[in-house]
Amino acid sequence: MGIETAGGWTVPDDQERIIRTLGQACELCDLIIVTGGLGPTDDDLTRQAVAAFLDVELEFNKSILDIINAFFQRRGKTMAEKNRSQALFPAGSEVLDNPIGTAPGFWSRHGDVSIAAVPGVPAEMKLMFRNQIVPRIQLLEKGDVFVSAKLRCFGAGESDIAQKLGGLMIRGRNPLINCTCGSGDIVLHVIAHAKNKTEAAEMLEKDMSLVHNVLGGLVYAEGEQSLPAVVGKLLKQHHHTIALAESCTGGIVSQMITDIPGASDYFLGSWVTYSNDAKIQLGIPEQLIIDHGAVSEQVASVMAENVARHFGANIGVGITGIAGPGGGTEEKPVGLVYIGLQIDDTNTVEKCLFSSKNRQWIRSVAAMTALNMVRLRLNI
Amino acid sequence: MGIETAGGWTVPDDQERIIRTLGQACELCDLIIVTGGLGPTDDDLTRQAVAAFLDVELEFNKSILDIINAFFQRRGKTMAEKNRSQALFPAGSEVLDNPIGTAPGFWSRHGDVSIAAVPGVPAEMKLMFRNQIVPRIQLLEKGDVFVSAKLRCFGAGESDIAQKLGGLMIRGRNPLINCTCGSGDIVLHVIAHAKNKTEAAEMLEKDMSLVHNVLGGLVYAEGEQSLPAVVGKLLKQHHHTIALAESCTGGIVSQMITDIPGASDYFLGSWVTYSNDAKIQLGIPEQLIIDHGAVSEQVASVMAENVARHFGANIGVGITGIAGPGGGTEEKPVGLVYIGLQIDDTNTVEKCLFSSKNRQWIRSVAAMTALNMVRLRLNI
Repeated sequence: MGIETAGGWTVPDDQERIIRTLGQACELCDLIIVTGGLGPTDDDLTRQAVAAFLDVELEFNKSILDIINAFFQRRGKTMAEKNRSQALFPAGSEVLDNPIGTAPGFWSRHGDVSIAAVPGVPAEMKLMFRNQIVPRIQLLEKGDVFVSAKLRCFGAGESDIAQKLGGLMIRGRNPLINCTCGSGDIVLHVIAHAKNKTEAAEMLEKDMSLVHNVLGGLVYAEGEQSLPAVVGKLLKQHHHTIALAESCTGGIVSQMITDIPGASDYFLGSWVTYSNDAKIQLGIPEQLIIDHGAVSEQVASVMAENVARHFGANIGVGITGIAGPGGGTEEKPVGLVYIGLQIDDTNTVEKCLFSSKNRQWIRSVAAMTALNMVRLRLNI
Repeated sequence: MGIETAGGWTVPDDQERIIRTLGQACELCDLIIVTGGLGPTDDDLTRQAVAAFLDVELEFNKSILDIINAFFQRRGKTMAEKNRSQALFPAGSEVLDNPIGTAPGFWSRHGDVSIAAVPGVPAEMKLMFRNQIVPRIQLLEKGDVFVSAKLRCFGAGESDIAQKLGGLMIRGRNPLINCTCGSGDIVLHVIAHAKNKTEAAEMLEKDMSLVHNVLGGLVYAEGEQSLPAVVGKLLKQHHHTIALAESCTGGIVSQMITDIPGASDYFLGSWVTYSNDAKIQLGIPEQLIIDHGAVSEQVASVMAENVARHFGANIGVGITGIAGPGGGTEEKPVGLVYIGLQIDDTNTVEKCLFSSKNRQWIRSVAAMTALNMVRLRLNI
C-alpha cells in the first residue's frame, strides 16, 4: 500500500479553526485523517466540527451507546453521563469500530474527499488505522502506484549509513530512500513509484537488496519488526533461553524482551542489581567490586555468567555502566557501559562509551546495544 | 510562560512544500518552530528550505564544524564528510546551541516573524526548546498574558474526571481546562489569560486549588513531574527503600523507577520472575502456585514480602498478571493483575481488572497502578 502524503496539521481545540483546516486540507488531498477529539470531554470537538463542516446534523446511534455501556460494564463500572456524546456521529457517516476503547471513529465524505476520524489514543489510533483506514485507502488509490518498505539498522550513526549508501540516497531518485532515527536505531524508508504495482515492486526489491549488500549486518529487520522481536525470534529458533542482570539499564532490556508476546518461551528472568549489595547477592565477589569497581569489564562478565547459571539459561547478559547525570569520573565517565554476554561456555564483554550526556538516551542505547550483541552472535 | 498556538503542520521532505508551508504559517503567527530536517543526510532540507524562503545564502560556520568534529572525537570516531552540512546556516541567522547532539539549530527573522529551527530527535528538541526557544518567546510576548499549568491525575478515567469537574471544563471559560490522556494517567491543562501576569496568575492559582479540592488524591503532581518521580521523592523523604518482584510487567516498574536520577538512594533491586521456576527461586512455595495459580492474590502477596526481605528493603512490591494476548481463561481473563504491597509488617494486595486487550497498555497501566499504590500509602 502506498500513498503520497500531503502533510499534517495540528489544530488547537477551536471549532472554527478545525473547520478552516478541513477546508484547506480538502483542497490538497483526497483523504483527510483526523486523529483525536473523540473523547467524552468538552474539549473533544471533532464530531461537532466535522458535522458543521459538512453542514449536517449529529445523529445519535443507540446501538453504539449500548456497546460503550457494555465496555464499562465489563470493567465493573458505570458509564459516566459524559460518554453519551461518543454515540453521536455526523449524519451520513459510517461508524468505524474501536475494539479497544470507548470512542468509535467515523468515515464521512465531502464531495470527492473522504474524512476519516479516529481517536488520538495511540494504541486505538494505530489499530483502527490498520484495520479500518488502510483497507479503505486501497479502494481510493489511482494514478501512479507507490510501494514502500522499511529497513531497520543498528550499530552505526545516521551519517555513517548515509555515507555508505552514497548516491542511493540522492534526492529525486526513484526509489527514494529516506532516513529517520530513534534510540540509536536508524530506519531507512525506501519508496518506489511506477505505472503499475509489479513494476514498482520490482524497483523496490532491487533497491532493498542493494541496501542489504551495502549495509550487511547493520540491518536487523525489515518492516515493523523491533530489535527485541528479532532477538526473540532468533532465541526461539535456536531453542535458547536467556536471563539478564541489569544495573544501569534498570530493567529496560527485560521490559523490551517481555513486550513481545510469547517471550516466556525463551526469557526466564532477570535481576535488576542496582546496588552493590544486590550485585554481591548475585554472587559477584565483593573483592572484585573493590578491585575493579562495580562498573568494570570483570563485573559485567561475572554478572552475565552468574545470572545464566542462576536461572538455568544458556545465555546470560550482564550490563553495568554510568548513566549519569552524577557518578562519572575522569577515568570512568558518564556514558561508560560494559556489556557481558555468556553463551554456553563462552564469555565476552563489550566496552561502550556513549557520548551523549542524556541519562534516558544512554540507558536506552545501552539496552539496544545489549540486544544487538545477542543478535549478532546468534546470526553467525 | 504562555502563548496561543496557531497550529502545526507536518510537511513531507520536499523543498517547495516546506517553503509554501512557511509562507502560510507566516500569515498566521509571530513565531514558527521548525523541528527536524537538520540531520546530515540528503533528506534533511530545513537549512536549504529556510534559506530559500528568506532568499538568503547558506553560510558555512567554521567554529560550529570544529564543535561537531570534537563531538565525534569524544566518541573516538571520525566525523563523516556528510556532517559538514550541519555547519551551514541561513545568512543572518543566530546559531542555537545543541549540547547533546551534532545538529545545532538556528533562529531567523522574516519581517516580524521569527523562525526557529531545532533537530527532530526528541531529547535534543525538548532540551533546546526549554533552553533556547522559551527564553526568546518570553521576549516576543505582547497583548494578553497567558499563564498555564498542568495537573497530573491517576486512578480514574477521563470521563469520570470531567464529570467531577463539571462546569469547570466548559468551553469558553477563562481559565480554560483541557484534558489529555496517556497510559492511564490524565493531564489537565489549566490556561488563564488576563491583561497582566499577576491577574492571570491569580486566576490560575484559584482554579488550581478548586481542581485540587474536587479531585483530591487523584492528583499526583503539578507540572512535568512523572509518577515515578513523585514516588521517588516520597520514598526519599520517608527514608524508605524499595525492591520489586515483577512478573507480567517484566521490568517496567524497575525501569520507570531507575529512570529518575538518584534512584539508587531508595531503589535496591528487582527480580523479574517471568517463569514459575524463577518465582520458586524467589521462595514462593511451589504448592502455593499449584493451589492458587501464579496469577493469584496469594502469590502477589508472597512475592512482595519475599523480595523486600531478600533485598533488605522495607517496601516490597509484587506484580503478577495476564498481559495477553494469550494465557487468559474464563476465570482469569487477560487484563487480570494482582499487585502485592509490603510496607514494613503490613501486606496488602490489590486486584485489578484492566478491560483493554492491548498487551502494552495492560503492562504499562499495571506498572503505573503499582507506583500509585505506593504513592497513596506513603501520602497518608
